[in-house]
Amino acid sequence: MNGGPQLRFDPLVREWVNVVGHRQQRPNLPAEGCPFCPGGLEAPEPYDVRWFPNRWPALRPGPPVDVAAAEAAGTPALPAAGAAEVVLFAPRHDASLATLGTAQVRKVVDLWAQRTAALLARPEVEYVLVFENRGRDVGATIDHPHGQIYGYPFVPPVPAKEAAVARAHGCPVCAEVAAEVAAGVRVVARHGDWVAYVPYASGYPYGMRFAPVHHAGSLADLDDAGRDALAALLVDALGRYDRLWPAPHPGYLFPYLLWFHQAPAAGGPEWHVHAHTAPPLRAPGVARYVASGELGSGTLSNPVVPEEAARALRDA
Amino acid sequence: MNGGPQLRFDPLVREWVNVVGHRQQRPNLPAEGCPFCPGGLEAPEPYDVRWFPNRWPALRPGPPVDVAAAEAAGTPALPAAGAAEVVLFAPRHDASLATLGTAQVRKVVDLWAQRTAALLARPEVEYVLVFENRGRDVGATIDHPHGQIYGYPFVPPVPAKEAAVARAHGCPVCAEVAAEVAAGVRVVARHGDWVAYVPYASGYPYGMRFAPVHHAGSLADLDDAGRDALAALLVDALGRYDRLWPAPHPGYLFPYLLWFHQAPAAGGPEWHVHAHTAPPLRAPGVARYVASGELGSGTLSNPVVPEEAARALRDA
Repeated sequence: MNGGPQLRFDPLVREWVNVVGHRQQRPNLPAEGCPFCPGGLEAPEPYDVRWFPNRWPALRPGPPVDVAAAEAAGTPALPAAGAAEVVLFAPRHDASLATLGTAQVRKVVDLWAQRTAALLARPEVEYVLVFENRGRDVGATIDHPHGQIYGYPFVPPVPAKEAAVARAHGCPVCAEVAAEVAAGVRVVARHGDWVAYVPYASGYPYGMRFAPVHHAGSLADLDDAGRDALAALLVDALGRYDRLWPAPHPGYLFPYLLWFHQAPAAGGPEWHVHAHTAPPLRAPGVARYVASGELGSGTLSNPVVPEEAARALRDA
Repeated sequence: MNGGPQLRFDPLVREWVNVVGHRQQRPNLPAEGCPFCPGGLEAPEPYDVRWFPNRWPALRPGPPVDVAAAEAAGTPALPAAGAAEVVLFAPRHDASLATLGTAQVRKVVDLWAQRTAALLARPEVEYVLVFENRGRDVGATIDHPHGQIYGYPFVPPVPAKEAAVARAHGCPVCAEVAAEVAAGVRVVARHGDWVAYVPYASGYPYGMRFAPVHHAGSLADLDDAGRDALAALLVDALGRYDRLWPAPHPGYLFPYLLWFHQAPAAGGPEWHVHAHTAPPLRAPGVARYVASGELGSGTLSNPVVPEEAARALRDA
């Protein structure tokens, strides 16, 4: 196990779990200075946007693993082949996607798209998850604006479920975005093709989805106008989180999770790129715990009515 | 929405989300005194073990709802018909499942079994989830030893997935328990028919599963010997959490989630009763965050190697 991350098969649900014992030793806080500022440990030279491999990778480059064959053969463990990268959004420490401005965030979108394409071209990567964990309340230990990218050797269960639904019932993102635009009441912002809305059945307080009205598979598939629209939407919609409640102290970062779902290496018309956001709070300073009732069932309980969340975000 | 909890259909994954706006107003901490101590708000009279309806129910009694028909018809919302109950494990405030002793915990097991059968007999309840959220770190606001029970109008996604696997591949719990007993290295404790082990592909640091070696569908199906064994196992295995690390302060409760999966009202030979536990820590005082990489993918990353977790729990 000291050799690195290991995928282990859970026979109760026939899904893989990543056992990452080597990550237990990682520091909770960097020892000195910000490693992401220019001149820091992970950014020795000046940069505008930047990516680099995670020093404590949950998945890492290596020979391709055949997950389907392993499942069929009853193989219980595989090396966690894939990728884990860090993306720096800007050299400025005291900033965020919402404050960097559309032009800089467009560069971030371009880098996400570039890394998506580059990782999907590797034989060991089938799926690319672009995400941001922001704020101390979700475990982010470094405030410098940054996100992460995981490359998986399989399509993970959550996007796989969305794709299976799309194959069986038609694209649910196309239908949902159209319905939300028509209803209006849960729409938070729109820029060009991209819409931010609190979904009708949001499982997370103040959780939003970001999606383009027109069907597009992945970040890499977005054209210039689509990338500009996404950048403008991120600045607009994420900025509303920062204005939703009074900051409890200077330098406070409203915490949220943000992840994109997009097409895998195999492609397919059922994929419609979109993002989910999930703040870990249900009121100022009040954590929303996902506990046994939700983890044990898989059915989320959201104490913030989506229409009220959308109104508060529109008003912010 | 002020009328009560509402199930809303999420078309992206075709699963239901419970919107519980009325719960947003619930107090985070009780105003005065422990409501669960004898003479308190929720326990006005002496008791040994006790259950009562949750004052802020996530699911509540009402006419049955037909979830499958609603999905087929495209009905987006239904009343969250079901049940939400609180179970008091003992009158003593300063206690827990681990310290109450096997005889008292046996009474808890009996009450769980009784409420399972009683709720499954209601027309609006198809599935019963018995669980405990323990400790401030998982959001429990009252230290008095207690758990909860949810009754759902459908089989929720997580137990439904386990049952689908069992129907397609044979009982995975039977196979896993037998394999873990044979391997030994991840077994934490055994009492009679019931075994506590850290599963090979545990998604949670120090997470355990509790299951009987012999196939049994639900808590209500357990005979006297099975209930005694489960009670003894709970005292033994959960007590190891309290001894795993030094308590940071007097009265500290090592935090964990505990939930049981068991057969629904419709029954079926594919169900094998068992429990999952999930502590929210990966080291003393160090939270294990489930963030975007895991929520966005559905693939958990566990930084504590299961064999090491099992050894630490055996040694505790």
